[in-house]
Amino acid sequence: MSEKWYLGAGAQNDIVLSTRIRLARNLSEYPFPAKLGIPERIKVNNLIKDALSCEGAPKLKYIEMKTLSQYEAVSLAERHLISPEFASSGDGRALLLAPDEAVSIMLCEEDHIRLQVMYAGLALEEAFAYANTIDDIIDSKLHYAFDERIGYLTQCPTNLGTGMRASVMLHLPALTRCGQMQRLVSTVSKLGLAIRGSYGEGSAAKGDLYQLSNQITLGISEKSAIENLKSITLQIAAQERAAREELCKDINYEDKIFRAYGILSQARLLTSDEFMELISFVRLGAVKKLLPIDEHTVNDLLVSMQPATISLSVERPLDAQERDILRAQRVRDAIKEE
Amino acid sequence: MSEKWYLGAGAQNDIVLSTRIRLARNLSEYPFPAKLGIPERIKVNNLIKDALSCEGAPKLKYIEMKTLSQYEAVSLAERHLISPEFASSGDGRALLLAPDEAVSIMLCEEDHIRLQVMYAGLALEEAFAYANTIDDIIDSKLHYAFDERIGYLTQCPTNLGTGMRASVMLHLPALTRCGQMQRLVSTVSKLGLAIRGSYGEGSAAKGDLYQLSNQITLGISEKSAIENLKSITLQIAAQERAAREELCKDINYEDKIFRAYGILSQARLLTSDEFMELISFVRLGAVKKLLPIDEHTVNDLLVSMQPATISLSVERPLDAQERDILRAQRVRDAIKEE
Repeated sequence: MSEKWYLGAGAQNDIVLSTRIRLARNLSEYPFPAKLGIPERIKVNNLIKDALSCEGAPKLKYIEMKTLSQYEAVSLAERHLISPEFASSGDGRALLLAPDEAVSIMLCEEDHIRLQVMYAGLALEEAFAYANTIDDIIDSKLHYAFDERIGYLTQCPTNLGTGMRASVMLHLPALTRCGQMQRLVSTVSKLGLAIRGSYGEGSAAKGDLYQLSNQITLGISEKSAIENLKSITLQIAAQERAAREELCKDINYEDKIFRAYGILSQARLLTSDEFMELISFVRLGAVKKLLPIDEHTVNDLLVSMQPATISLSVERPLDAQERDILRAQRVRDAIKEE
Repeated sequence: MSEKWYLGAGAQNDIVLSTRIRLARNLSEYPFPAKLGIPERIKVNNLIKDALSCEGAPKLKYIEMKTLSQYEAVSLAERHLISPEFASSGDGRALLLAPDEAVSIMLCEEDHIRLQVMYAGLALEEAFAYANTIDDIIDSKLHYAFDERIGYLTQCPTNLGTGMRASVMLHLPALTRCGQMQRLVSTVSKLGLAIRGSYGEGSAAKGDLYQLSNQITLGISEKSAIENLKSITLQIAAQERAAREELCKDINYEDKIFRAYGILSQARLLTSDEFMELISFVRLGAVKKLLPIDEHTVNDLLVSMQPATISLSVERPLDAQERDILRAQRVRDAIKEE
């Protein structure tokens, strides 16, 4: 197994878990996927796969979604490699995936191409540069649906223009605890950004994880969008750090951090929700060097302890109790190894 | 500091923490303490002290209660060496205390003499034999208030006759959890016994600790009373063991045991109530060899983590938060040492 992107260290990693750049692209010769039958989708998928089989392109594995079991597909969504919607139906859909999972390309999701680059920490420019490189390779082989005035054409008008969605995953336990999130949501929306639960629109912020992303794709360059997102990320990170500083002076909060660690070290049953609640405290304790656990171990657990990803690790579907037992065991083992 | 009685091992120690025999005695030449002025009480106290200063008597320290700080007095009550009532007022009261705390004699409590022997585990005959020895020494020097027909005379009629209260401290987490205690309370009362919280009448059963004691002192020999108590203790212990067997098959309960251990290993704040709740799980886990902690360490903590006893260990009164911090630290240290 290759080293996964999330096992690396990244800038601002005390607060920023990861950066994602997603580009939406369509081929000009074909209607949007919704209007394509399965054979035509497969044709489109193969065109794109072939375009990326050349020298200089990243090595990607081609996965037909219909060949995956449900937990394999859902695990990909849990790891943010595909959209939850893409996991739900496999017909005529395929995924191009890098071994380290830093690059994933959904084929025939809403658009023909949903190219994603995901890096650890805050790395917007780097992720964008790499996405751009891959985008250029495809562009040199195939013909994108592009309008000189509007930009890239996409099925959903919210993506028209750059077709780019840049986002960062933030761990904001202190701002959440201090009741600052409501204010933050409204502030960033005025700045053309959105802050949401870790699985996007409508999802809860489990583990105090939030996704901050640009909303505007039209009439703005990728560079400006990224600069804006980066600058606001750094401001939020500074606020979160200040709030953490205050919070950690409170012995009641320190107590909660250590208790969460104690429970995760010993529990025999852990639901996903409880795990997320406790690991948030432990991540802060790790970052603050209060706990004998590395934050990268925590980041790894955040990804690998999700329901379908646990099933994937034993290569069979598990019922809820089996999953809770296995989750508890894996968490104990990870803590013991430190 | 001498080794305390509770640090030793005892029979049935998985369930029976300790055995206490208490004899109530009065001197025939003096009215009951309630009718004595302070100088006369002191006179009585000295008479008894002197009676026990001879060869063959246990080495006892004479402590005038008025010389103790409040937390010193309350700590003695927490450790079951004196009654809570005895801790509340020091005038004309004194205590004779063995270095290992196995023997304590309250002077001028309700009766002139309240002689107690406390042993680890189930040791009713042994404790009674030792109490008897001490009682005989006093009897050989002083004149007890004794009626041929009734037996020993005591202020409260419930103690008339043998003047003996025999009791065992039981840890009954499984019977408590299975909702069996109500039934048990009513059953043992029909058998001339009472089962109560660990601090006697009206006290809550914190930590699932219960005190089982004989109620009848009149028209029954000490031997019969002790045999009765022992036989019922063994029956309850068998029921508790069977209930534990069932309970520990349940992963939800096993999970609770390990979580309790995890929290006690890591918490930075522990109230007395939460400590008692958690240590009950941990004691069962220790007895069942599920946890890397010795049950004697648990027994020691049960005694030493009580509010006034914690203050005693630092020789100054502590406020509630200081106590909770110190308790959490001591518990962590005790677990780490294992």
